[in-house]
Amino acid sequence: THLHTHTHTHTHTLVMGIFGTGDLGRSLGLRLLQSGYRVVYGSRRPHSCGPVSFQVASHAEAAKEASLIFVCVHREHYEFLTTLTPHLKGKVLVDLSNNLKKGIYPEANAAYLQRLVPGADVVKGLNTLSAWALQNGLLAGKQVYLCGNSANAKQAVSEMATKLGLTVLDRGSLSAARELEDFPLRLFPEWRLPLLVAACLMGFFYFYLLIRDVIYAYVETGQDISYRIMISLANKVFPIVSLVMLSLCYLPGCIAAFLQLYRGTKYKRFPNWLDRWMLCRKQMGLVALGLALLHAIYTFIIPIRYAVRHKLISRMKNNKTTPFYFDNKEAWGTDSFYVLGILGFFLYLLLGLTSLPSVGGSLSWREFSFVQSKLGHLTLSICTAHGYIYGWNKFLRPSTYKWYTPPGYMLCLIVPSVVLVLKILLLLPCVDRSLTRIRQGWERNPPLIEVNKASSL
Amino acid sequence: THLHTHTHTHTHTLVMGIFGTGDLGRSLGLRLLQSGYRVVYGSRRPHSCGPVSFQVASHAEAAKEASLIFVCVHREHYEFLTTLTPHLKGKVLVDLSNNLKKGIYPEANAAYLQRLVPGADVVKGLNTLSAWALQNGLLAGKQVYLCGNSANAKQAVSEMATKLGLTVLDRGSLSAARELEDFPLRLFPEWRLPLLVAACLMGFFYFYLLIRDVIYAYVETGQDISYRIMISLANKVFPIVSLVMLSLCYLPGCIAAFLQLYRGTKYKRFPNWLDRWMLCRKQMGLVALGLALLHAIYTFIIPIRYAVRHKLISRMKNNKTTPFYFDNKEAWGTDSFYVLGILGFFLYLLLGLTSLPSVGGSLSWREFSFVQSKLGHLTLSICTAHGYIYGWNKFLRPSTYKWYTPPGYMLCLIVPSVVLVLKILLLLPCVDRSLTRIRQGWERNPPLIEVNKASSL
Amino acid sequence: THLHTHTHTHTHTLVMGIFGTGDLGRSLGLRLLQSGYRVVYGSRRPHSCGPVSFQVASHAEAAKEASLIFVCVHREHYEFLTTLTPHLKGKVLVDLSNNLKKGIYPEANAAYLQRLVPGADVVKGLNTLSAWALQNGLLAGKQVYLCGNSANAKQAVSEMATKLGLTVLDRGSLSAARELEDFPLRLFPEWRLPLLVAACLMGFFYFYLLIRDVIYAYVETGQDISYRIMISLANKVFPIVSLVMLSLCYLPGCIAAFLQLYRGTKYKRFPNWLDRWMLCRKQMGLVALGLALLHAIYTFIIPIRYAVRHKLISRMKNNKTTPFYFDNKEAWGTDSFYVLGILGFFLYLLLGLTSLPSVGGSLSWREFSFVQSKLGHLTLSICTAHGYIYGWNKFLRPSTYKWYTPPGYMLCLIVPSVVLVLKILLLLPCVDRSLTRIRQGWERNPPLIEVNKASSL
Repeated sequence: THLHTHTHTHTHTLVMGIFGTGDLGRSLGLRLLQSGYRVVYGSRRPHSCGPVSFQVASHAEAAKEASLIFVCVHREHYEFLTTLTPHLKGKVLVDLSNNLKKGIYPEANAAYLQRLVPGADVVKGLNTLSAWALQNGLLAGKQVYLCGNSANAKQAVSEMATKLGLTVLDRGSLSAARELEDFPLRLFPEWRLPLLVAACLMGFFYFYLLIRDVIYAYVETGQDISYRIMISLANKVFPIVSLVMLSLCYLPGCIAAFLQLYRGTKYKRFPNWLDRWMLCRKQMGLVALGLALLHAIYTFIIPIRYAVRHKLISRMKNNKTTPFYFDNKEAWGTDSFYVLGILGFFLYLLLGLTSLPSVGGSLSWREFSFVQSKLGHLTLSICTAHGYIYGWNKFLRPSTYKWYTPPGYMLCLIVPSVVLVLKILLLLPCVDRSLTRIRQGWERNPPLIEVNKASSL
Repeated sequence: THLHTHTHTHTHTLVMGIFGTGDLGRSLGLRLLQSGYRVVYGSRRPHSCGPVSFQVASHAEAAKEASLIFVCVHREHYEFLTTLTPHLKGKVLVDLSNNLKKGIYPEANAAYLQRLVPGADVVKGLNTLSAWALQNGLLAGKQVYLCGNSANAKQAVSEMATKLGLTVLDRGSLSAARELEDFPLRLFPEWRLPLLVAACLMGFFYFYLLIRDVIYAYVETGQDISYRIMISLANKVFPIVSLVMLSLCYLPGCIAAFLQLYRGTKYKRFPNWLDRWMLCRKQMGLVALGLALLHAIYTFIIPIRYAVRHKLISRMKNNKTTPFYFDNKEAWGTDSFYVLGILGFFLYLLLGLTSLPSVGGSLSWREFSFVQSKLGHLTLSICTAHGYIYGWNKFLRPSTYKWYTPPGYMLCLIVPSVVLVLKILLLLPCVDRSLTRIRQGWERNPPLIEVNKASSL
Repeated sequence: THLHTHTHTHTHTLVMGIFGTGDLGRSLGLRLLQSGYRVVYGSRRPHSCGPVSFQVASHAEAAKEASLIFVCVHREHYEFLTTLTPHLKGKVLVDLSNNLKKGIYPEANAAYLQRLVPGADVVKGLNTLSAWALQNGLLAGKQVYLCGNSANAKQAVSEMATKLGLTVLDRGSLSAARELEDFPLRLFPEWRLPLLVAACLMGFFYFYLLIRDVIYAYVETGQDISYRIMISLANKVFPIVSLVMLSLCYLPGCIAAFLQLYRGTKYKRFPNWLDRWMLCRKQMGLVALGLALLHAIYTFIIPIRYAVRHKLISRMKNNKTTPFYFDNKEAWGTDSFYVLGILGFFLYLLLGLTSLPSVGGSLSWREFSFVQSKLGHLTLSICTAHGYIYGWNKFLRPSTYKWYTPPGYMLCLIVPSVVLVLKILLLLPCVDRSLTRIRQGWERNPPLIEVNKASSL
């Protein structure tokens, strides 16, 4: 009987009010009902437009009955709430509204609501939930944010959200409301820097190769090979930028390690640019993977291209009389080149797979670090070797240096080579030992106050 | 001390009973134990077959001790519970059973159980959990459904399930039990329509191309090119159906927009067929992606086919004397064709990636709509252009229209072209403005009762 | 007002203490603050190094205020806690520490902590959380383990963890601490057996094919075709091992079925080796998928290889005078071979997709079993047919059996053929009926005590 009494009380005290009978209001009501709450809608036309099978009352009546009220109404229509202030006194008002664009209004919707109804406890939150997610039961484990000035009001909303299967994060006072309202409007902020870097690199290398390949051929021999812009050039730019981006993923880790070695402590913050760089490594790697995939598809498509077939046929006709010997070294060279490319791409794919949230989440810490560090550096080494072998027999030929410029693949090998050399230095036993000690909390010049302090995890 | 008293009480009141010591019973017991409950098994042979390290009692004793009892026994053996009715009075009985097929029994298992033991509170639920998932700790964040006539009983089960990491949805009274029992038996219901549409389209186009290509050649020239059925024909049918399916993903959105514009309100429900269509857009897109992937692989495999190599070699021999000039326009044309195909496929893959639950769940509302709408329409445009370029120099040739029929790729361009034209119309500033207003709640002919009502989210 | 009183009490009783102001301590504190707790740090230098905007006190003061204390300090520094024993009496100490390697210390960190502070209730747990996951809000739905000797202490920690969005599993008394501490150090334990099997198979087949292809050619004709080691040989080994691994996924299921049929009951445990084998089927399938992907890429790359182009060109020159007829049977044969390969690979990919945690988790039980059983056996059949067609016209040629050894693809067809035959036997109506009855709980020789017992799920 203890159990029954307990749950009895619990079930009957909580009536949820919803103002607004739009998509969001209806979906939310249904979901609250399914989680065991009693729901009452507030509407100005209680008899005409309420959702079927729900209790629909006037706004005032709904406010009287419910202790917690969801405001599912557009900000432009908030004024009507001023007429309800006596009924809303002491109630928790949840503002779920979003705006269509950033910065339309001088103050956050929730702050405006609090100003209109000063007697109520306004909580901003749950605004990342869509009617669509509510209808289709996609709430389990989703994170939602709350903010508000009353701790009790936030606690009440948080308990309700937990029952709906959501995970709640408290973002502090109502002054954070604007941030929460901007949240559903953000558009891949963490992808901006990687995409910008990729775009700049691609622009540079595309232009560089255009001059070296197409314009050079036109100026020097008068040949028009402009058709190469579409595939041949792109298929040089993609792998070049992909390799540079991949090495840019691993460069900040090396820089951070050398910085810690130089400073002799891990307790000093990294400079801002390094922090920012390290935070977008995953996105950089995924951009690199995308470009590597494009490179692979472009390569597969080579033999069905008109230009390639034409060359094959005409080559045969021109060489008709000369004998054509099989060059074992050439066969080894090109095959090694392809094998390294394939293996590199395969490892790239594995790295990409572990960056899927559901796969990465199921890895232990050591597994994740094994994949991202060991496997990552192996991928980088193989892809770099793939680049070196590409030019294995062309480094010393003068014809390689058209107009005294090095070919694109040579330029792109600089960054990965530097990263690999730095990494090898870090793996030297003496350096590795110092670094491990520093990362376990040892300090070369500990703070003066207390030398043998308890170092922290 | 407050904390200790509280938890002390909580831990000791809850003893869970389990009837049945099969796979499911054992796994469930272990999991309950891990979540801090005390577990007692009820068995007719308490001394012979109980799980190691658990308390196993007779059914009657277990029923006396536990307030909540899981019935992990097949429906065929429920009769034995009638002998326990005095001990089960007022207890919560959780029916976890499933059937092997739909509609074997006239009444739901849980309803049958309630009829056998009228004094107990039967709750149907958790029946989507498998012994396998319980053993391997795959419960976190999973949604389970409950139904039952007693709110208190449901509340008790719901609290237990929440402690196991599950998210609980209440489906109402015990009359919903049949629906819950059919749940684990459903087999891709949302995939049926898309797969049916794809199968019909593939059947039609396959037959159409068979006549135009293989049978035409046989009838007109007596050539037997039936070997083309395997790859060449399939590699025409796949991209055709893929493109049509992709445009069918975006057509209902356009239709819905025009319907809202015509009605002047967003508050009227869409016709049923449109609702159903919109609900399976994701599956349609994924079927389209699958076909596009097959098209890509079929294309990569082209140059290693016997027929293609043979053609290359014989072409060279036959052309031996005629000179063979390089056609720049041809090179540009085919290369553009391939580039559009590759880029389209790449964007297709990105769209498919965001439809993975774990990736889509981590996107904000604006990011999701950006990917699915902007990126989706861009993909459709590029793939359509890929189709148009395929026939760029064949539109006017009479030999294209064998037996006065248009080639397959022309037919398949109709739907995507219509969708793109409709989309462009919707993007016209004046149309876009009206639509945005309507979607914000504005109505051309608002209900008469109250003109300036608070429009809802 | 009931609501307010309740939450008021709840919010104010819980002060969380954190010893240690390192990465983990800071991230944890921030997350606790966001979930509505009050946090106080304990530090030996409360005035110099505390995290900004947090209350930092001496260890003793922090211990006095908080009822639950997180020890975010390295094990090497635990000694300082002995000085605090009077303040820690009756408090809950959460040990979150991990070691860098297994087996460095004779006793678990948590056991050591309990020995140092016997008056406190030590709970080991949450040690799988990284500072990185805490900072980036990746906790939702994650499973964490707890163990400890006090049920109340575990309950308190469990409630806190649930509020953070974690799912808690109780692993029993503090003697399980070592197991929990080894958890973050595990490195793909379930992948070891599949990778070992794959490595052995690859080694064997590589060596076998090396002798048959490269060494045979060198010994018999003096030709040096060692360049084939890189791609041609690998592209034979990968599909062979992939097919064998795929059939090894489905073999244990067949063996288990025959074992149940032979024993006449499902209640006897399988032998250990079979259990272990069945538990790594998913990983075996994924290794097979990886090898199939490599096979696909190697195949796509064929026509751009130097050796292949050279052969094409030289073949044309040598055949210059002989006429070259199109062989329809050859075209059908090779095309069927490719089509089966493509379809098999496509189904392979689908199988792999459903093994992603987020995709598999959204399938119903019947959907999952449909994909893994029906689709899986279909894939196996298609891939086996792909293998058979490869040798369709070579089985009877004596030149196939170099040095009297069968070619590799014949060897690799043995296991899948056996699996398919066993599966067909199991699908025979009479066998299927018996097996279904057994799996529903029927026993041929039921235990003597009680014949008509209630069979369990």
